[in-house]
Amino acid sequence: MTDRVVRHFQEELEQLKARLLEMGGLAEDRVRSAVRGLVERDEALVDRVLGGDGPINHLHIEIDSRCFKLLALHQPMAVDLRAIVSAVKINTDLERVGDLAVNIVEAARRYMRHPPVKELIDIPRMAEIAQSMLRDALDAYVRRDIALAHMVLNEDDDLDSLKTQVFRDLLTYMLQDPSTIEPSLDLILISRHLERIGDHATNIAEDVIFMVSARDVRHHAQEMTE
Amino acid sequence: MTDRVVRHFQEELEQLKARLLEMGGLAEDRVRSAVRGLVERDEALVDRVLGGDGPINHLHIEIDSRCFKLLALHQPMAVDLRAIVSAVKINTDLERVGDLAVNIVEAARRYMRHPPVKELIDIPRMAEIAQSMLRDALDAYVRRDIALAHMVLNEDDDLDSLKTQVFRDLLTYMLQDPSTIEPSLDLILISRHLERIGDHATNIAEDVIFMVSARDVRHHAQEMTE
Repeated sequence: MTDRVVRHFQEELEQLKARLLEMGGLAEDRVRSAVRGLVERDEALVDRVLGGDGPINHLHIEIDSRCFKLLALHQPMAVDLRAIVSAVKINTDLERVGDLAVNIVEAARRYMRHPPVKELIDIPRMAEIAQSMLRDALDAYVRRDIALAHMVLNEDDDLDSLKTQVFRDLLTYMLQDPSTIEPSLDLILISRHLERIGDHATNIAEDVIFMVSARDVRHHAQEMTE
Repeated sequence: MTDRVVRHFQEELEQLKARLLEMGGLAEDRVRSAVRGLVERDEALVDRVLGGDGPINHLHIEIDSRCFKLLALHQPMAVDLRAIVSAVKINTDLERVGDLAVNIVEAARRYMRHPPVKELIDIPRMAEIAQSMLRDALDAYVRRDIALAHMVLNEDDDLDSLKTQVFRDLLTYMLQDPSTIEPSLDLILISRHLERIGDHATNIAEDVIFMVSARDVRHHAQEMTE
């Protein structure tokens, strides 16, 4: 590749990263709004999340298209190749996070038809952890920062224990008072959706580690050839 | 590319397809065993699924490695490029299906500590649909068959209505008899895991349509440039 072509490729790669960060920001906003809508029983906010997946879907297609162009026109090697294939996967993960925000507001809408089961404390905490995992995973991608990616993997344990906590609490309510069964089920589903957002952040972090080191951490470190 | 190099590339691509089919077969087996373990309350079978993710994880790493080698060494274009990037994504989907089989048996184990809530009819049906969607989606990939891929997208609606059916049935049981709350929760979770297996098959089918036609069906048809 000539210098000019290399520079052009690097510029395109920077734009790709910027778009992924933008997509991550949109996904995170949607999760935040979904959970705020639930906690504040704000129907207008919930409806806004429900109808607002246009921008993220648009960006999803644009990012995929950028990745395929980069692969086809520049035929990158080694870490650049892995960075672009990772971008395709990360793009998919972020799009799913957007879908999970929709799943959360669908459950929130049903939940709001009943009186509140309890004050919601653990679910907003789960949302905060999931959002921060997502942010850190994307920062780790952009900065090719393995240490930060490993931090994301550790945070997933906190999310998991909160999910178990939510489940146990709500089970107690349901056993004591059958009128709480239906709304409790929706809170349990919401906590599972948040757990899955953490799973997507974990996927991204694993992709970052693979991209930078070409070492596959997903099933406990087997070295991969380039 | 010389004829010999082209032939070699096509052979490698065939091997990649064969490995993906093998991976799909393993994933499907695990789902089948998980649900049979649940229905027949077969603890040994459940434990076998729980400890048996080695082969699928191994294949997951091997397939990823094959894809990266093909991209780096052969620098494919157009439909071949899309076929290989799709393979990376499909590989991820199949690995997740394997994980979902583990989630199913984890819930099945808890379920089996209680007397049966009801005869299980809808859940095995959901499992059959999800498995057949997975099989069809992979066949569609291997044969580059868009019509078959569209069939998979339609099947997802059946899975969705069964999931709603399972939820309503179990809610009735829970409201009538609180002793069924805990085991019913696990059946609801299992039905959600099966729904997600259908989602993975849907992802694969969408990838196939994109691969063959370079048309993105995920957010209602926006044409993509190559």
